[in-house]
Amino acid sequence: MSTIEKPEALSDYPVTFTMPIQWGDQDAFGHVNNIIHIRWFESARVLYLEDSGLRLMLTDSKTGPILASITCNYRRQLKYPDTVHIGARVSRIGRSSMTMDHAVYSQELDTIAADGSSIVVVFDYEQNRPVRVPDNIRSAIESLEGRTF
Amino acid sequence: MSTIEKPEALSDYPVTFTMPIQWGDQDAFGHVNNIIHIRWFESARVLYLEDSGLRLMLTDSKTGPILASITCNYRRQLKYPDTVHIGARVSRIGRSSMTMDHAVYSQELDTIAADGSSIVVVFDYEQNRPVRVPDNIRSAIESLEGRTF
Amino acid sequence: MSTIEKPEALSDYPVTFTMPIQWGDQDAFGHVNNIIHIRWFESARVLYLEDSGLRLMLTDSKTGPILASITCNYRRQLKYPDTVHIGARVSRIGRSSMTMDHAVYSQELDTIAADGSSIVVVFDYEQNRPVRVPDNIRSAIESLEGRTF
Amino acid sequence: MSTIEKPEALSDYPVTFTMPIQWGDQDAFGHVNNIIHIRWFESARVLYLEDSGLRLMLTDSKTGPILASITCNYRRQLKYPDTVHIGARVSRIGRSSMTMDHAVYSQELDTIAADGSSIVVVFDYEQNRPVRVPDNIRSAIESLEGRTF
Repeated sequence: MSTIEKPEALSDYPVTFTMPIQWGDQDAFGHVNNIIHIRWFESARVLYLEDSGLRLMLTDSKTGPILASITCNYRRQLKYPDTVHIGARVSRIGRSSMTMDHAVYSQELDTIAADGSSIVVVFDYEQNRPVRVPDNIRSAIESLEGRTF
Repeated sequence: MSTIEKPEALSDYPVTFTMPIQWGDQDAFGHVNNIIHIRWFESARVLYLEDSGLRLMLTDSKTGPILASITCNYRRQLKYPDTVHIGARVSRIGRSSMTMDHAVYSQELDTIAADGSSIVVVFDYEQNRPVRVPDNIRSAIESLEGRTF
Repeated sequence: MSTIEKPEALSDYPVTFTMPIQWGDQDAFGHVNNIIHIRWFESARVLYLEDSGLRLMLTDSKTGPILASITCNYRRQLKYPDTVHIGARVSRIGRSSMTMDHAVYSQELDTIAADGSSIVVVFDYEQNRPVRVPDNIRSAIESLEGRTF
Repeated sequence: MSTIEKPEALSDYPVTFTMPIQWGDQDAFGHVNNIIHIRWFESARVLYLEDSGLRLMLTDSKTGPILASITCNYRRQLKYPDTVHIGARVSRIGRSSMTMDHAVYSQELDTIAADGSSIVVVFDYEQNRPVRVPDNIRSAIESLEGRTF
């Protein structure tokens, strides 16, 4: 397997990863089923949390990320065989939540096949309520994104 | 297995179905994984297309429904064992698209655990473009919903 | 939804449960994908562990069940829509392992569409090795199966 | 992403492919769920059919492969993050069926984490019965395997 470059279309996404489409990702319409994109978004989200140091920080305290909502726009139909690159970036940091953008780039189609976003809430599991995004997490994200929020 | 009634919380949803949560629907956090809700939304969407006569109408012509986007709000964490009731209703019919609302009711929690919506576009596969929602489809939905759009 | 009786074909299985086939369970061949049966086997296995009191017993000690192997024979192709009944029974108890049989009955086909078995090992997580099946677990299974092993 | 070599442990498998483990592949026990291996087996099986020219040959006629049974031995527990290499080889060709062996190699564990086999039957969909494995398919497999059956 040759080295895989990050596609230009995902240049605005600091965190990306690559997945082969599996034959079984397809449904009875012969296209990649709509839940597979949501699994890819999740993988990109988890990777972002790791790359930003968030997962470790959150593990050490009583607070953790909760997925509050997800949106996916299905722009092009995907088929096996293909390889997709999935990107994640943070586009907004609020008081206790942040918005993460996702995009799925298809090598075969050479374009973004789907995009969307997740809203992740920082949650205190002991007090059972959302809490302020910690300053060190905000800094870690700003460092990864190369900008301030 | 005893007879399962449609829960009051889904009274505004003309199409509903019931699913047991499977142990394997849970992820490493010990809660139902976020892609499972999207699978349930899909099942409710397909059932609505059938109950409204849409699937048959669409099968007979060159046009068919395409999923354009999906949104899910995760309001409560679900766990095994539980039984969920999933509802679907059409809340908007536009020129060539419609919005379908979804809700997931948990028997254990006795509340709506997740809700969201899908945008479905009526697509002409021969001309490769969206087409007007056919009048008979609009009528079938209005009949099912008990109101005009 | 009407009351669902346990099918005669599963009369030898003390533990059964019922699942609607979802449209998205189908793959690009238009049949239920082969991994779905394995998910159903797992659900039946977990239910058996609960009904026999095994899950609770195992939770209270340092030992627990590990899935060592699984086999599935695909006898008939399944399609949406259909309802399946999945059965589990223990057919062998060895020193530190047991064999559980599974069967999937299709309402539409009125026959067993798939069968197979799992080998479950009782494992001591502290000593990191298989241990003897506890006597109370053996008794609970014999009681559920109505025979001795 | 750097170039990934085929692991020595899969040297007997002419067809291999590589997959990152996704966080969501894990279940409530915090390990890769047992259905994921079966999905990987399927992907390796499809890839073998393509690499041997089988899929094309079968597409052009009225005959096609049907999965008759599958077995998986779970030898080691897999966790995220990890990368697995999955291998496929044909170990037996009978009159109308063949046995395909599978193995899952974990980079983190540096060992085979699971292995198993599939029985694939060549089926005539018009006559609705198994048929003899065609000579050209037998030759293609022998060429890929570097031996006669």
